Amino acid sequence: MLNVSLIGAGNLATHLFKAFDKADEIIVSRWYSRNLNKIKSYANRTEIIDKLDDLKAADICIIAISDDAIAGVSQQLPFTDRLVVHTSGSVGIHELDGKNRRGVLYPLQTFSEEAEVDFGQVPFCLETLDKDDLTILRQLAGSIGSPYYRISTEQRQTLHLAAVFVNNFVNQLYRVGHEITDIKNIPFDILKPLILETAKKVQHMSPFMAQTGPARRNDSKTIKRHLNLLENPMHKELYEKLTESIQQTHGRKKL
Amino acid sequence: MLNVSLIGAGNLATHLFKAFDKADEIIVSRWYSRNLNKIKSYANRTEIIDKLDDLKAADICIIAISDDAIAGVSQQLPFTDRLVVHTSGSVGIHELDGKNRRGVLYPLQTFSEEAEVDFGQVPFCLETLDKDDLTILRQLAGSIGSPYYRISTEQRQTLHLAAVFVNNFVNQLYRVGHEITDIKNIPFDILKPLILETAKKVQHMSPFMAQTGPARRNDSKTIKRHLNLLENPMHKELYEKLTESIQQTHGRKKL
Repeated sequence: MLNVSLIGAGNLATHLFKAFDKADEIIVSRWYSRNLNKIKSYANRTEIIDKLDDLKAADICIIAISDDAIAGVSQQLPFTDRLVVHTSGSVGIHELDGKNRRGVLYPLQTFSEEAEVDFGQVPFCLETLDKDDLTILRQLAGSIGSPYYRISTEQRQTLHLAAVFVNNFVNQLYRVGHEITDIKNIPFDILKPLILETAKKVQHMSPFMAQTGPARRNDSKTIKRHLNLLENPMHKELYEKLTESIQQTHGRKKL
Repeated sequence: MLNVSLIGAGNLATHLFKAFDKADEIIVSRWYSRNLNKIKSYANRTEIIDKLDDLKAADICIIAISDDAIAGVSQQLPFTDRLVVHTSGSVGIHELDGKNRRGVLYPLQTFSEEAEVDFGQVPFCLETLDKDDLTILRQLAGSIGSPYYRISTEQRQTLHLAAVFVNNFVNQLYRVGHEITDIKNIPFDILKPLILETAKKVQHMSPFMAQTGPARRNDSKTIKRHLNLLENPMHKELYEKLTESIQQTHGRKKL
């Protein structure tokens, strides 16, 4: 059985609480938020508090708050020599105050407020200074059915950057697709199965192998026609840059 | 019952044949390929031919071959006044020879040779010059369980372009994610659930609403750190251009 203290009331903290609350091997003994209103609906499931001094030592204290606030909060914890972890993709492990044992529990996934989270699809990147603490984090991730990987601070920061490409930037290309179709009164719905299939394809095939299309084929006729069709200068620039990138990857000549 | 002649032996033609062969209301009476070897394993399911002159008039003749060859093949068909459709995203309906009734049956999806295709997830863009012919194409798409939309040539060419963004270009961003993680010995597997979730999110939420991350938040500290981490000049350029695009979309100031 793992006894957990949780700090924070954002999307991630709330999803974590719900998953921990369901897990047989985890008890969330205290849940801290500056603003009790945000978590008061859970008051019957755990002890909710709005003073850091009311936190008690637990097996793990999880700080799931914004990057800039992590170091400060870790200094204010009213206990020492306990395992304290943050959940950030970019904050180094040493930014946590050294009076406690330090670790990181970074979930590489996108969370929205409304949607239920299936933690079986949330890989956790684990880092600790002490080897025994890694065992605790593995136990925690395993208890909610999540896959986990041992990942150093440098690797985690790289993953956070890679996630910007495959999540934020990919989503922006969906947005461009939406803009392009909207102008011609085409329902965006037509593109949705393709979006899903493109993501499914790389689950079992490398993106390199999965590539198709005019840039991959070096089909300059189609590329030219597409560039002529694009009216928005930013769409044109993105088309050119991404075509160039595909041709670099696949060893074709430049546009 | 619809009697179909099929021309071509590529991925799409082969997946179409399999779907038609299973459908109760469709009979593929002849299947043409220049190279009989490619389709000979289906000889027990339909009549396979390698001479266009051996084609007979059917309810629909589907030309599923490369863009450049469509016009020529449509001229060589040994019948007139029948419904002849191509399956291209970019070829105009009028490029088909006028001796037959003309139409387009464009599946907006990515096909690979190995994977089975679920045609329930393949939206068809339908176009015909004659209204009655549209009914035939609707019946055909419906028979294999596919959603369908009436789409003009101009709209279809726009969709083809949008598909390059949400499929080829998105896949290239997956590739960049793969390259970035590979250098640091991080398994690409960690990114796969995020890739899938990002695609799932826009099935029920607009890409505009779904956007998160440093560019959306205008978090210039993180953006700078990411740009410093990137060693590959093309990765850097893509990061800058896509960040700029997100900031344009969401009305934030430039980098």
